[in-house]
This record gives sequence, C-alpha cells and structure tokens, in this order.
Amino acid sequence: MAESAIDNLIRQLARLPGLGPRSARRLTLHLLQRRQGVLQPLLASLAAVEHSVRSCRTCRNLDLTDPCSICADPSRDRKVLCVVESLADLWALERSGSFRGRYHVLGGLLSALDNVGPENLGIASLLQRAAEPDVQEVVLALGATVDGQTTAHYLSDALAHTGVQITRLAHGVPVGGALEYLDDGTLSAAMWSRRPL
Amino acid sequence: MAESAIDNLIRQLARLPGLGPRSARRLTLHLLQRRQGVLQPLLASLAAVEHSVRSCRTCRNLDLTDPCSICADPSRDRKVLCVVESLADLWALERSGSFRGRYHVLGGLLSALDNVGPENLGIASLLQRAAEPDVQEVVLALGATVDGQTTAHYLSDALAHTGVQITRLAHGVPVGGALEYLDDGTLSAAMWSRRPL
Repeated sequence: MAESAIDNLIRQLARLPGLGPRSARRLTLHLLQRRQGVLQPLLASLAAVEHSVRSCRTCRNLDLTDPCSICADPSRDRKVLCVVESLADLWALERSGSFRGRYHVLGGLLSALDNVGPENLGIASLLQRAAEPDVQEVVLALGATVDGQTTAHYLSDALAHTGVQITRLAHGVPVGGALEYLDDGTLSAAMWSRRPL
Repeated sequence: MAESAIDNLIRQLARLPGLGPRSARRLTLHLLQRRQGVLQPLLASLAAVEHSVRSCRTCRNLDLTDPCSICADPSRDRKVLCVVESLADLWALERSGSFRGRYHVLGGLLSALDNVGPENLGIASLLQRAAEPDVQEVVLALGATVDGQTTAHYLSDALAHTGVQITRLAHGVPVGGALEYLDDGTLSAAMWSRRPL
C-alpha cells in the first residue's frame, strides 16, 4: 500500500468540503494516473492562485488585484452598493448577472450565539463607503435566516443617518419552484408581494 | 468577478471525477479563504506526490519506490500473486487486509469493444512472474463483469502451462446485503456455493 506522500494527499483532500475518504481516494488515484494531464495543471493553477490572490481593501472581495476588478471597473454603477455575507454570495450574484453596482463583503453575519458582533464584520468600512457622495442606494442582499435578518436590521439602523436608500432582495416563489413544496413563510411573502401581470 | 487564475482553478477542479462546476466553486472558495491552513498544505502534498510517485516495474503498482513497498516487503507471501484490474482494486484489497501476497496490476481488462487486447495489458510480465519457482497460486481478483470474466478466462488459459493453481474470488451475498435487493445471478451463485454453518 502506498505510504506517506500519497496517504498525506488523500488526507488533505478528504478534509475539503463535500469530499470524504472515499472520494479523496478516487481523486488521488485519478491524479496519480494522470500526472501530466491533470495533476500538473492543477498544481500550477493552485500555485498561481496562492501567490496572486489578495483581499480587496475596499470591498473585501478576493481577486488578483487590489482594488478588485469589480471596484476598479469604471463601467460598474457607483451609485449602488450591494452588501453580501460572503464571497460565495458575491459570486452567485455575479453569475446571475443581475447586479451592475459594487459590493461590500461582510465576511459573516451578526450572531449572538456565535459571538459575532458588529466589530467582527466589515461594518465600519461599509458606513464609511455609504457616506460617500456617489452612493445613493445600499442593497442588503442577506439570507432570509434569523442571523441574516438580524444583521439586515442592524445595518438598516446604522445606515439610517447617511440618508441613502436601503433596499433588500425580494422574497417569493423561486423560479422553477413548485408551489406545493414551498414553505408557508415563502408562500405568504409571495402572496403579500404579488404583482400585476 | 475574479478572473483567469481563479477561474482556471475552478475549471481544473470541475474536471476531476465526482466534482462539477458547483462543487469546484465551493472548493475554490474554501481554498481561497484558507490559504495558510488548507491551500498551502494541499499544494505541498500534490507537489510531493508529483515528484516522488513512480510505477513499480514488477507489479505496476504506483508507489514512492520501485520496486513498490509491497513487492519489497519481505513479510509478504511470495507464493501467491493477486491479479487486479487497477490500482483502485489493489487499494481496496489492501484496505480489506485480507491478502498478504503480492499483486499484479493489469491496468485494464480485455475488451473487444474498446479494442484492448492482451498486448495492451501487463500480461506478458504476469506470465513471466507466474513462472517463477516461488509462485504457487495466482488469484484472479477481477470484477464479475463481462470484460472481467473474459479476461479471467483468457488469463486462466494463458497460465495453464505454468502449472500454478489458479483461483478466483468467491461470489455470494455481500456482507450487510439484504437478500431481497440482490440480483438473481448473485443469489444463484450464493446458493450454489452454500457452505455448512
């Protein structure tokens, strides 16, 4: 049985989210058997990312440049800031192509249980950015969870004095979603916010 | 949205078996956000494996040494050779702890459809090894598939003149398996090979 270096790689892979010992072994075999075609390119791109990725000092996005490509893009609307919990949410919104403003990544949500207070999130810099003369609207694109809504309320209070318009994402029926499987809260929200056809 | 280096990493990860674009993005985010704790160790072990893994010239196992640690282990039984299709099967048998002899990795199965003939597999070297005076038994640990059985028959014919004992894995009810979900072939095999309790 292979030892040390191979077992070590399996252990590393098994710790990644969504992978376990079984899939880690499968990946390792795949990589070992395709060193030229798969392992080497993967190594190269991991190394490239390791050395070049940095956190944007403006919005806390991760990118190859600081300020990040979104903050630096002159075609993005400087009037709207979108507040997201995490990089994953920023990526999801970018994939949807529905937002052309700039972002602010909190890096978490307020949580009494997990002892996360306003000072742990990027809230001071958000208030600073919201006070810039360009900014007219802050979209609170936070999850419809307890912590997400708590954070949204806190931010909306904190932002009140800046005079910017504060909005949130709409609640409703997910596109492609069947009504019968939706929870009551979502259905009620969709009914309350019904729109003329 | 992040570009080139990050997208490139996502693309590389998404091509790995069992991963898709979604899990590749999730992994990339995980790696980016934990560069010290996860990305760097993973890089190091990939690099270690890339440089040190070699194919055993005796049994075609992949290991850090040639001959591999199994072939070089003096405590392994030199009387029994176990023929497996792939490295994955070798690893599975080693995990089971049920075999203490040495292996021979074919690197595939005979397949008329996929145009794999005896010359594409490690069969010449298997015949050579089976003819060594130490070897008394060859276990054909091949899958119970059409190609697996074709290969087993071919090997059993090819090995006939060496005079070694040729065995195959037992068929039967998988441990933990419920009878009602088993296919007819397995049930019949288990019934034919029934043993006194």
